[in-house]
Amino acid sequence: MSKVDIQKQIMQAVDAVKKTNPMAGSVTNTVTINLVANAQLAVGGSAAMVYLPDEGEFLAKAGGAFYINVGTLFPIYEQTLPCAAKALHDAGKPWVLDPVAVGIGSLRTELLKRFKEYKPGIIRGNASEVIALAGLWGLDGSAGGSHVRGVDSTDTVAAARTAATALARWTGGAVAVSGTTDLVTDGSVVAFSHGGSHFMGKITGAGCSLGGVAAVYAAAAPPFIAALTATAAYNLAGSRAENKADGPGSFQVEFLNELYKATAADIAGNPLEIEEA
Amino acid sequence: MSKVDIQKQIMQAVDAVKKTNPMAGSVTNTVTINLVANAQLAVGGSAAMVYLPDEGEFLAKAGGAFYINVGTLFPIYEQTLPCAAKALHDAGKPWVLDPVAVGIGSLRTELLKRFKEYKPGIIRGNASEVIALAGLWGLDGSAGGSHVRGVDSTDTVAAARTAATALARWTGGAVAVSGTTDLVTDGSVVAFSHGGSHFMGKITGAGCSLGGVAAVYAAAAPPFIAALTATAAYNLAGSRAENKADGPGSFQVEFLNELYKATAADIAGNPLEIEEA
Amino acid sequence: MSKVDIQKQIMQAVDAVKKTNPMAGSVTNTVTINLVANAQLAVGGSAAMVYLPDEGEFLAKAGGAFYINVGTLFPIYEQTLPCAAKALHDAGKPWVLDPVAVGIGSLRTELLKRFKEYKPGIIRGNASEVIALAGLWGLDGSAGGSHVRGVDSTDTVAAARTAATALARWTGGAVAVSGTTDLVTDGSVVAFSHGGSHFMGKITGAGCSLGGVAAVYAAAAPPFIAALTATAAYNLAGSRAENKADGPGSFQVEFLNELYKATAADIAGNPLEIEEA
Repeated sequence: MSKVDIQKQIMQAVDAVKKTNPMAGSVTNTVTINLVANAQLAVGGSAAMVYLPDEGEFLAKAGGAFYINVGTLFPIYEQTLPCAAKALHDAGKPWVLDPVAVGIGSLRTELLKRFKEYKPGIIRGNASEVIALAGLWGLDGSAGGSHVRGVDSTDTVAAARTAATALARWTGGAVAVSGTTDLVTDGSVVAFSHGGSHFMGKITGAGCSLGGVAAVYAAAAPPFIAALTATAAYNLAGSRAENKADGPGSFQVEFLNELYKATAADIAGNPLEIEEA
Repeated sequence: MSKVDIQKQIMQAVDAVKKTNPMAGSVTNTVTINLVANAQLAVGGSAAMVYLPDEGEFLAKAGGAFYINVGTLFPIYEQTLPCAAKALHDAGKPWVLDPVAVGIGSLRTELLKRFKEYKPGIIRGNASEVIALAGLWGLDGSAGGSHVRGVDSTDTVAAARTAATALARWTGGAVAVSGTTDLVTDGSVVAFSHGGSHFMGKITGAGCSLGGVAAVYAAAAPPFIAALTATAAYNLAGSRAENKADGPGSFQVEFLNELYKATAADIAGNPLEIEEA
Repeated sequence: MSKVDIQKQIMQAVDAVKKTNPMAGSVTNTVTINLVANAQLAVGGSAAMVYLPDEGEFLAKAGGAFYINVGTLFPIYEQTLPCAAKALHDAGKPWVLDPVAVGIGSLRTELLKRFKEYKPGIIRGNASEVIALAGLWGLDGSAGGSHVRGVDSTDTVAAARTAATALARWTGGAVAVSGTTDLVTDGSVVAFSHGGSHFMGKITGAGCSLGGVAAVYAAAAPPFIAALTATAAYNLAGSRAENKADGPGSFQVEFLNELYKATAADIAGNPLEIEEA
């Protein structure tokens, strides 16, 4: 894929979502669940969040894609998440995994291990989470170990490149690593997406909602394009919002406005570089 | 009731809430729980949210009204919701039911069926939800079936008129159907409330928070007036907020501002039509 | 401690947090969880929220401080909260207790009773909650009983002075009582902090997020200074935000902006009075 081909597919993904309003269900954390839904609506998708096993399975089958974020686990997730992930895998539906705070707690570890077999089409995380997930799955790229601190990353995006590539090769999908410059790979190509804002680290949920938006695009485009489209949309809207914002409060408001207003051409035109993996 | 009588009662409801600050407890979904509380506070009410059975029962008895929204069910709701609904029914307290995503999952279906006997004073939903609830309760108006997709409606408000009327006659309360033009009925009169904004479909929680606000007004007015007051307040604030908003982010901010600033005369003067059912 | 000493320590606390970005984990309610996290980030801290016992314990050990808010209890909290509180106590870590809606429900009562032995470094609540907690723990200051209504206070800050002092003497930490003028005491000194805004009662979470921010400062300063710094920051940001806000929607946005922009000198210079307890 050339850069021009990729940009063309990004434009198609953005327009397809605006036209078809695809529904992406979610099981996601309670901290940022509102922003996830609002971001999904802002780009033209539809959101639905659930906690129970049969409801997760229902939405997995009914939606165009799905988003699983393990940020705040409830006990019932021991059943809900494998149930939804299996339904998604069996139906060949794309889903996004956000391995928030990988390494904290036994249920989180157990669930994230099980997801290896259900192959999420997109894995989105910060550098430390991507490195730690590769380690948990016994893949390359985690030799030096990761440095997860709560929900924050203490590793650089560059340090997660090998892990991201290994994860993408295992799933046959894409991996998006969030950082100052974001990295998105399908295991053969590595894309770097520029932009965003320092305020994205000063609000909670920039990463989670990016995962939810990637799920919306995954209902209308292949995983790599969906992940890259969401990432580019976030970098564009983040940069534009920063110019209008006086602090993190108004940044979040302007960010949703800009996400809503961004056109296909705007998003495809956001600074992007492509390399071989 | 003439239109003038209704408008007079709307003004009384708005002023009574501003003066008495009534508390309406809620068991509601985690996606929009914050907006529900903030909207309840904006109109002059007090909010309190719980999940556990004895706490639901306590708030049901302690508050002037209650709000039950089944958007994101937790396992404990199998006990909490019947417990709260029974306490409300036994105490003759008004409560608002928001049958979000009716049709998804076995617990949701079972709970919504049980609510038939506890007769919510106000039922609020989109057209598809109202049609589906009437069907679940074996009432008129669901002959053609409803078209629920996740949490979205794919039916028109007009298509839900028979179902809404049948539900209101069963409960002896009121039903509010949200759409481009909103319909509120007590089974004998049908009111149409105009206004609102296309942005209300671009943020999550416009419907849920309307239900929460209807519960606040139900603590100070009969169900039909309470439902209509909340609906008119939302249409007014939505129209005004759209004029100041640059996208869904600023729309939500301006919407809460306008809800807070709306006077009794503003709300009663919002475009309204009355028909026989 | 003289007022000048206290102001110097407030400045040190603010700067230390901005420099070291301390992580304060939380188990907190789902209504205001997003605002808690965003406020913690705005002052320079890091946030992480969990629900499960081993995760609460992990974050209790990993973070610099912790925040427990009993607003919306889940069944699993029967295990999670004692587990986290014990880990905090055993490790000598500072933690903040927010006894929201004390008196509602059996689990809430049981948990709040158990917390007596785990001695939270900071207790933050409205006047009614502070009086009720002192009563629950068998301490002075609750002779007249408290008047909790849902999550609202119906007692004055002055009425909670004896209870606050007794609680602080029991824990050896600090107590912050929120009201028109806020009271913070370590049992020997009583500080009064002025400012804030009437809009803080018109949004949900002003109190909860103050508790979360106090936990962030508690990772960098002694309990009394941490509680007072958080309180002063809230009064300052509240006053400034009110000047820019047109209603509760924009108030919340401006409040986060002002919290983010407030300097150490701004916060230390917020109107403050000191008395013997």
